[in-house]
Amino acid sequence: MSVWGNVLITGSNRGVGLGLVKHLLKQNLTQHLFACCRKPDAATDLQQLSVDYPCLHILQLDVSDTSKYCDVKDEVKKVVGEAGLNVLINNAAIFPKPSNFDDVTFEQMTSTYEVNVAAPLMLTKALYPLLKTAASSSSESVMSIRRAAVINVSSKVGSFDVTTSASAYPYRCSKAALNMVTKLLSIEFSESSILVCSVHPGWVQTEMGGPNALISTDESSSSLVNTLSSLTPGHHGGFVNFNGDNILW
Amino acid sequence: MSVWGNVLITGSNRGVGLGLVKHLLKQNLTQHLFACCRKPDAATDLQQLSVDYPCLHILQLDVSDTSKYCDVKDEVKKVVGEAGLNVLINNAAIFPKPSNFDDVTFEQMTSTYEVNVAAPLMLTKALYPLLKTAASSSSESVMSIRRAAVINVSSKVGSFDVTTSASAYPYRCSKAALNMVTKLLSIEFSESSILVCSVHPGWVQTEMGGPNALISTDESSSSLVNTLSSLTPGHHGGFVNFNGDNILW
Repeated sequence: MSVWGNVLITGSNRGVGLGLVKHLLKQNLTQHLFACCRKPDAATDLQQLSVDYPCLHILQLDVSDTSKYCDVKDEVKKVVGEAGLNVLINNAAIFPKPSNFDDVTFEQMTSTYEVNVAAPLMLTKALYPLLKTAASSSSESVMSIRRAAVINVSSKVGSFDVTTSASAYPYRCSKAALNMVTKLLSIEFSESSILVCSVHPGWVQTEMGGPNALISTDESSSSLVNTLSSLTPGHHGGFVNFNGDNILW
Repeated sequence: MSVWGNVLITGSNRGVGLGLVKHLLKQNLTQHLFACCRKPDAATDLQQLSVDYPCLHILQLDVSDTSKYCDVKDEVKKVVGEAGLNVLINNAAIFPKPSNFDDVTFEQMTSTYEVNVAAPLMLTKALYPLLKTAASSSSESVMSIRRAAVINVSSKVGSFDVTTSASAYPYRCSKAALNMVTKLLSIEFSESSILVCSVHPGWVQTEMGGPNALISTDESSSSLVNTLSSLTPGHHGGFVNFNGDNILW
């Protein structure tokens, strides 16, 4: 019952990325699962999982190094053949700290944008042929995670609707821009029937979220997998909370 | 009747920036007007205007070169003394073409963000002490362009509400992020009584807007000056069309 098909997740060696990998494997939701991370040699959790799950492929990828995108595409294609790639989860992201008004630097702004916005867009572009193949060869008649999807892991702190405090300038600005990438790609991919949406993973107890965060990585990842499994064409071009609620831009 | 006080505009050698300079001078709205541009030697329109208007100061500034911000601040301070800077108009921007899905590059994304988002934020940060001085020494009791303001020249194409076509990825994403800068700075500057808002100059017949644009530079600039003159605390943290209408994020 590999209902999601072939899936690629960036930044999957820890945090929500690793949580998604675990839940997808345990629920046997994927045919092939490509877990990208910067340093496969140091990704001991992923290595451990790959012993029990032969469908897990660990790929080296620093998303800010666009010169590697073609290699990743080729490696994925070699494994999936004519089935294509059903799901791309753009999860890798950085959150420089401290980055309030007094601390924020030009370099923080630009490096955060490179990883959190430019990379997801360009990686999606690189993998688009594989996503298109999956969407067109699918037996599904409407857009869903089972047909083909690009999921951008965004954050509620990039929402204009809920922004009530001034902090984390590089991160917040990057997530607002990533949401615009989602909006634009959803228009771009309508004809190809590739579902595109932004998701908010919650405020998660990860290295990024810090110790005051509200939910565990396990709770976030488990809810996200359920929510993503339930996406409908109505979510296309939208912004969805980990629990399935819609979020305003 | 120098009702706006001391004003600085980036990217003022052409297009809407130059139009704003002309209208502010003709209506005698400024005490000192600092017109920043990359190449003052080549800015013949500004040079011509400076002959008739001694309040016009042409400053060299490539906004992507943050190492010059301190010089600009010092030059402004030398002229305005204890009066501070009343208005900063972050107008300089780039729009790489072609930049649709098939054409967009990582470099286009990042360079556009540097100029259109990171630079306005960091320049505002550099000039904040002067803006704060103007706001606190003003005889105005509420936020307005006459007290102190940061105006980010954004664009409707960065609005989630009106985005219905996928094009100009770097520019659209940068304007969505710039609007988040506006939102964050409006929260940051509430206590200092510095008004912050994004404005849409219209689709203007400039080098950037192209030949199909809807309104002339003169019409856009003239309307913008009127609209900015009428800003109230209700516009703080908002997005305003050149004609004064509100725009949704």
